[in-house]
Amino acid sequence: MTSPSNAPLAGLVGLGSMGFGMAQSLVRAGIPTHGFDIDAARVAKLVDFGGKPGALADMAGSLDVLVVVVVNAAQTEDVLFGANGVAGSLKRGAVVIGCATVAPDFARGLEKRLADLGVLYLDAPISGGAAKAAAGELTVMASGAPAAFEAAAAALDAMAATVFRLGDEAGPASAMKIVNQLLAGVHIAAAAEAMTFGLSQGIPPAKTLEVISQCAGTSWMFENRGPHIAEGDYQPRSAVDIFVKDLGIVGDVARGARFSAPLAAAALQQFVAAAGSGLGREDDSAVAKIYARNAGLKLPGGD
Amino acid sequence: MTSPSNAPLAGLVGLGSMGFGMAQSLVRAGIPTHGFDIDAARVAKLVDFGGKPGALADMAGSLDVLVVVVVNAAQTEDVLFGANGVAGSLKRGAVVIGCATVAPDFARGLEKRLADLGVLYLDAPISGGAAKAAAGELTVMASGAPAAFEAAAAALDAMAATVFRLGDEAGPASAMKIVNQLLAGVHIAAAAEAMTFGLSQGIPPAKTLEVISQCAGTSWMFENRGPHIAEGDYQPRSAVDIFVKDLGIVGDVARGARFSAPLAAAALQQFVAAAGSGLGREDDSAVAKIYARNAGLKLPGGD
Repeated sequence: MTSPSNAPLAGLVGLGSMGFGMAQSLVRAGIPTHGFDIDAARVAKLVDFGGKPGALADMAGSLDVLVVVVVNAAQTEDVLFGANGVAGSLKRGAVVIGCATVAPDFARGLEKRLADLGVLYLDAPISGGAAKAAAGELTVMASGAPAAFEAAAAALDAMAATVFRLGDEAGPASAMKIVNQLLAGVHIAAAAEAMTFGLSQGIPPAKTLEVISQCAGTSWMFENRGPHIAEGDYQPRSAVDIFVKDLGIVGDVARGARFSAPLAAAALQQFVAAAGSGLGREDDSAVAKIYARNAGLKLPGGD
Repeated sequence: MTSPSNAPLAGLVGLGSMGFGMAQSLVRAGIPTHGFDIDAARVAKLVDFGGKPGALADMAGSLDVLVVVVVNAAQTEDVLFGANGVAGSLKRGAVVIGCATVAPDFARGLEKRLADLGVLYLDAPISGGAAKAAAGELTVMASGAPAAFEAAAAALDAMAATVFRLGDEAGPASAMKIVNQLLAGVHIAAAAEAMTFGLSQGIPPAKTLEVISQCAGTSWMFENRGPHIAEGDYQPRSAVDIFVKDLGIVGDVARGARFSAPLAAAALQQFVAAAGSGLGREDDSAVAKIYARNAGLKLPGGD
């Protein structure tokens, strides 16, 4: 554990599967880090790992960097500008690193409202999953003022293997993230559609996985989520509800731009049907169960 | 050029971008090979490369292997059972290797009708593109009787780097191929949807390509076709019309199995709209032009 001579004081809100690993990466890089979460057990676990104790309301005024790794725009809004929001307590020149998947307009609005308080904002959605978060090897899509990048540099170095610098203001990074989520959601639903379609033709999902992984029909999601379907393992790594949310954002933004996105719309409906069938907290690959049920097919694992 | 001591006499029908390369691979492996095509210039070109001359009607009775690399089921039917079809001229124990993308039921029917004539059938759709065809490095999805595999072995060795053996009868190989085409078609349309959606948010397609290729939203097709869109280069490697056909087969087979395939259906409509707009013979990535036109956006290259 090295300690940079001029390490910033960091806080991270949202010690979930991504946020906890990111906080660990900050601690490991020698950055003094407070972890904040509504679940006190997670905060205690980070303190055990070397994190610092304390409540967000008490600490906000002393932080140089506040990383916000909550689920969505509403929670981000709440942390900063809600009834107990801390935006007004942050010191001038501090930087907020916003990691939730949000609409570009929301990110632009945050940047402006924080600027009015003298606080910097880095639009910084993340990609890579819990293992890469814990290893400090995330991919970060980032955009914001040069001063925001500078203030966030040590924290980004600690958390990310790759930082795409996408512009000098908030917005482009969130836009790129929802482009990624459009593809990710469509590809998960397509993997489920293809593997169950194969099953309708007598091909076991494991065989489809084996063959298509080596053909032009493959995708990162096909190879990552396909094994869940082939093995009937729907323990959530990322949940159906996440794509109900993220493809919902895609749909909202696309409609706002008068952009017709029929694949994203069709994929969203399959995730909505999965959530409506009680599968919202299962792994997102459980969208395959909707395809199977609609065709009277039996997937591995009995669904 | 080695010449196997007991090399079969081969014929290949359809010297298009795939078939010509496959015929070259047969010749290169020392298998005496007749090439057949309605375009006499292509036949002559193969003879220049070392192929053998002669018309299919004259040669059919002496062939050990007949590889059929035509566009679809109708042309396959025509070659074998049409007005000038050669099925009845083939010798007993010869094998027909059927490479077109067709419905599994059509492949099963061919196998049965050829068996009635004492001729073997290998259901053998291909994947890999023209460069791999010419290099003898195709992927072949194959199913058929053990005797059909045995009779086809030397030709398969010459043409393919990988042969997936998917069953002891015709059908499963064609099923796997259409599963691949479902994914390939959805992924091309998704790449077009994502890159133009990004453009609607101010992100140039080249930037989307650069970033997403390293994120979870990537796919084989995104990385292969994405550059066509980013560079505005719609010279056909594989045409829009191919996916109108192949996603049409997917739709027909799925409907027949009472399998609901909403992503394949949505992708098909985008390719149909592209073909209906006069883009049928452009590269399949030209489906991006439909997205752009529907959103009032200008793609690289001016479309």
